[in-house]
Amino acid sequence: MTGKIITISRQFGSGGRSVGKLVAEKLGINCYDSAIIDKIAKESGFSEEYIKNQSEDAVEAGWFAALAGRNYYGQSNQDLIWIAQCKVIEDLAKVGDCVIVGRCADYILKGKNDLLRVFIYADNDSRAKRIVEQYGETEENPYKRLKEKDRKRSAYYEIYTDQRFGDPSNYDICLNSGTVGIDMCADFIADMYRLQYQK
Amino acid sequence: MTGKIITISRQFGSGGRSVGKLVAEKLGINCYDSAIIDKIAKESGFSEEYIKNQSEDAVEAGWFAALAGRNYYGQSNQDLIWIAQCKVIEDLAKVGDCVIVGRCADYILKGKNDLLRVFIYADNDSRAKRIVEQYGETEENPYKRLKEKDRKRSAYYEIYTDQRFGDPSNYDICLNSGTVGIDMCADFIADMYRLQYQK
Repeated sequence: MTGKIITISRQFGSGGRSVGKLVAEKLGINCYDSAIIDKIAKESGFSEEYIKNQSEDAVEAGWFAALAGRNYYGQSNQDLIWIAQCKVIEDLAKVGDCVIVGRCADYILKGKNDLLRVFIYADNDSRAKRIVEQYGETEENPYKRLKEKDRKRSAYYEIYTDQRFGDPSNYDICLNSGTVGIDMCADFIADMYRLQYQK
Repeated sequence: MTGKIITISRQFGSGGRSVGKLVAEKLGINCYDSAIIDKIAKESGFSEEYIKNQSEDAVEAGWFAALAGRNYYGQSNQDLIWIAQCKVIEDLAKVGDCVIVGRCADYILKGKNDLLRVFIYADNDSRAKRIVEQYGETEENPYKRLKEKDRKRSAYYEIYTDQRFGDPSNYDICLNSGTVGIDMCADFIADMYRLQYQK
């Protein structure tokens, strides 16, 4: 079986994860988000904690260290995690219809599955409000935190996919959760998926 | 009366104009596209032909000429056309609900009206096919024509709005007409407008 997959890329603080969960509930399909880390850990042998640290946050700081730490085949630990990540996501997509949040799934599954590729974004004010209220980030300069996470997420995506993060051409639909609202974003994505696949 | 407006920005060849017309039909409201040129001509005193030539196509070539051709107040003809364009679009938006395609209406009306700001785009292959089949462009290298028009449209938008053309943050929703399809794009925008304004 090959699933019809909704991939959700999202700006930090845009509520893309919440949108993904709501869409999956509406459609009665699975939503994979942090569960993917667990699966990558099993696949790669690295710990969940290490994988978390070696993803977005490590991209900028880690290149020199990564070069120093390559294995016999010239692969860094980041590369090994990426290979495991691709396998986990491809396997999930084979099992059945689902929503996958983040982890470059839009890129990894392109050409392999029927995809509805979504990008969720929002203005800085909405995102700053959200990361303080919902993610428990400190109120001390959330804009600085946004800027830092944006830079890291873009770098991670661009290094592994050779595409620009947030470029509409990589997606079928881009929704501004700041003006449209989380619930309405989810309604639209679910409607679109139903129409596209007559479900 | 102040209208609830759908503004449609679009990549050349993406079918954004067709989407706009379909949306307006579905909602039973007016769609303003080339009719705006006629109104700008009346407002500014310039001919329709001159306005067409002095918009996107003139931006790149015209700055030196424009500098040479400024009036007593330092305004070029392009500036005078822009001023007339802003007035025409603001007046249209005061009359009632409508769809406005192109002409930086998203920027001109921001903060003045209730807006649903849409961006329609598509991959180069879909756009090349469309400009040959629908717009009657020559089949000889449509990709070159796309590149040229993309550059000019971006330059025009960026010069007058100080925003990057096609940047999702300027819109509420961005739709890929190449993968989603013109009809479905129109369905979604109409649904979104109805939900947003309970119409």
